[in-house]
Amino acid sequence: MQKISVAIVGWGNVGRGCKRAIEETSDLVLAGVVRRPTTVSLEEVELQNTKVVSDITKLKDVDVVLLCIPSREVPDKIAQYQKMGYSTVDSFDEHERIVTVRKEADITAKAKKVVSIIAAGWDPGTDSAIRGIMKVVSITGYTTTTFGGTAGGRSMGHTALVKTIPGVKNGVALTLANGRGKHKRKVYLELMPDANFGEIDRAIRNDPYFMNDPLEIEVVKSVDKYNTLQHAGSIERTGMQVNQRYDVAGINPEFTANVMVSCARACMAAKAKGEYGCYTFIERPLIDYLPGNTLEEKLEGY
Amino acid sequence: MQKISVAIVGWGNVGRGCKRAIEETSDLVLAGVVRRPTTVSLEEVELQNTKVVSDITKLKDVDVVLLCIPSREVPDKIAQYQKMGYSTVDSFDEHERIVTVRKEADITAKAKKVVSIIAAGWDPGTDSAIRGIMKVVSITGYTTTTFGGTAGGRSMGHTALVKTIPGVKNGVALTLANGRGKHKRKVYLELMPDANFGEIDRAIRNDPYFMNDPLEIEVVKSVDKYNTLQHAGSIERTGMQVNQRYDVAGINPEFTANVMVSCARACMAAKAKGEYGCYTFIERPLIDYLPGNTLEEKLEGY
Repeated sequence: MQKISVAIVGWGNVGRGCKRAIEETSDLVLAGVVRRPTTVSLEEVELQNTKVVSDITKLKDVDVVLLCIPSREVPDKIAQYQKMGYSTVDSFDEHERIVTVRKEADITAKAKKVVSIIAAGWDPGTDSAIRGIMKVVSITGYTTTTFGGTAGGRSMGHTALVKTIPGVKNGVALTLANGRGKHKRKVYLELMPDANFGEIDRAIRNDPYFMNDPLEIEVVKSVDKYNTLQHAGSIERTGMQVNQRYDVAGINPEFTANVMVSCARACMAAKAKGEYGCYTFIERPLIDYLPGNTLEEKLEGY
Repeated sequence: MQKISVAIVGWGNVGRGCKRAIEETSDLVLAGVVRRPTTVSLEEVELQNTKVVSDITKLKDVDVVLLCIPSREVPDKIAQYQKMGYSTVDSFDEHERIVTVRKEADITAKAKKVVSIIAAGWDPGTDSAIRGIMKVVSITGYTTTTFGGTAGGRSMGHTALVKTIPGVKNGVALTLANGRGKHKRKVYLELMPDANFGEIDRAIRNDPYFMNDPLEIEVVKSVDKYNTLQHAGSIERTGMQVNQRYDVAGINPEFTANVMVSCARACMAAKAKGEYGCYTFIERPLIDYLPGNTLEEKLEGY
């Protein structure tokens, strides 16, 4: 079997996780990493045996591009890579924009005969699929999704955002449960010596990522102890005949990466059937995400 | 929109659950119930406004047949209804025979241009899908599935089986957790006055449904208090980067029925695309099981 050749675009926590996840599969291979030119760092050791380029055309025979970049850059990058003939996977996380982005990217995907799977991370992504299955099990009922519990968990998207604000030296944004599917946020910041806290505070509070939830911002000497990458979430559905609960807890960017890597497999399965287009995670059959060459292998442990 | 017309074959707990579940949907309608001719009973009240026939050809315009019959009768009945031009849904539960039954039924389905979704209940079925998603979230790891906890839950298949054994007046079979995905069984029996317990005991112990797990059989005056229809199960996956756990607890035949009814919707979605065949639950896109006419409606709460 020819292996599925995958390129990682972006070398943050998710990009690193994708490299590790690809190594856990037997049917995918890493073609290389696309990243901005950068100075020497610790990363060079991690990338010793990997081709690193600043332009994807320098990598040969790439099937699928994993977009491990900030969520807001995703829609433009999908189009850019689709037009170059690549299938793409991303973990775009703005729930309310998913349908719009999906429909737009579907047009280019069909025109270029590629497959894109969007919003395919933890939530949206596998959590959305769990919510879907819960609805099948309980036709009538209500679902709540809760992140971070009472201690809070580190949100990737919110943390990435606060770090981009001028005057912020380092930051961590935690998400905490606030009851019945609602959340609050806690942000820890290390500031530059000349930072204007008032401006930073306003910039965070007025950002769409933060404006809808209760928010506490605290300046600290070091954010290190909050920087654990751990997160947790629960989905509960209370139905007429049944209660259901799904709990997940672990290293957030790592399991997002696992999901993205499995999506590369589903992209190629769709391509093989000529089903070009852009899809959300639940629009492709779950079996296409699973490893195995035969029906028996794919249904192992069914 | 034309509603999906569904016939229920078999009038046990699952059949009753399917009737109730269809009433919770807005896109499905019950064409009627197919059952053996029977004498007057309480059921007549439940079926007052429903067409009851002993032969499906007496029902008009049925799209999908829900096979709410003992698991072992399912493979033959799939073929029988497919050949008459019906799509079918069942909750066949013999894990090790799924691939064989699926492949056989696929041939007839394609020949007759119908769609069958097999083994689509709780487990196999939605539990299998949860296990699949858990593998996507954690590429490396191990999964255990546990039913019944320490108190035990009433198993539909095992209970149906013990009740068919000559000399048994009534019976309930409970499934209990036995650690790391293993189970034990507890059977409560009411016997006929002339029953031979030794023979009954042997018949149960030698049945494939029971022979692989530790088993305790107890004769009681009445099984009523064990006859609650409640069951529960947990799936746990311990991975490299994440722990996951899914818990479900409720009325077993009712949520099996919910799953089967949602499968009728997915049958028609497959048929609309000309994708005739027999499928396991995870071979069809999850979105096809969900209600809604537009992508926006189907992705509600995504």
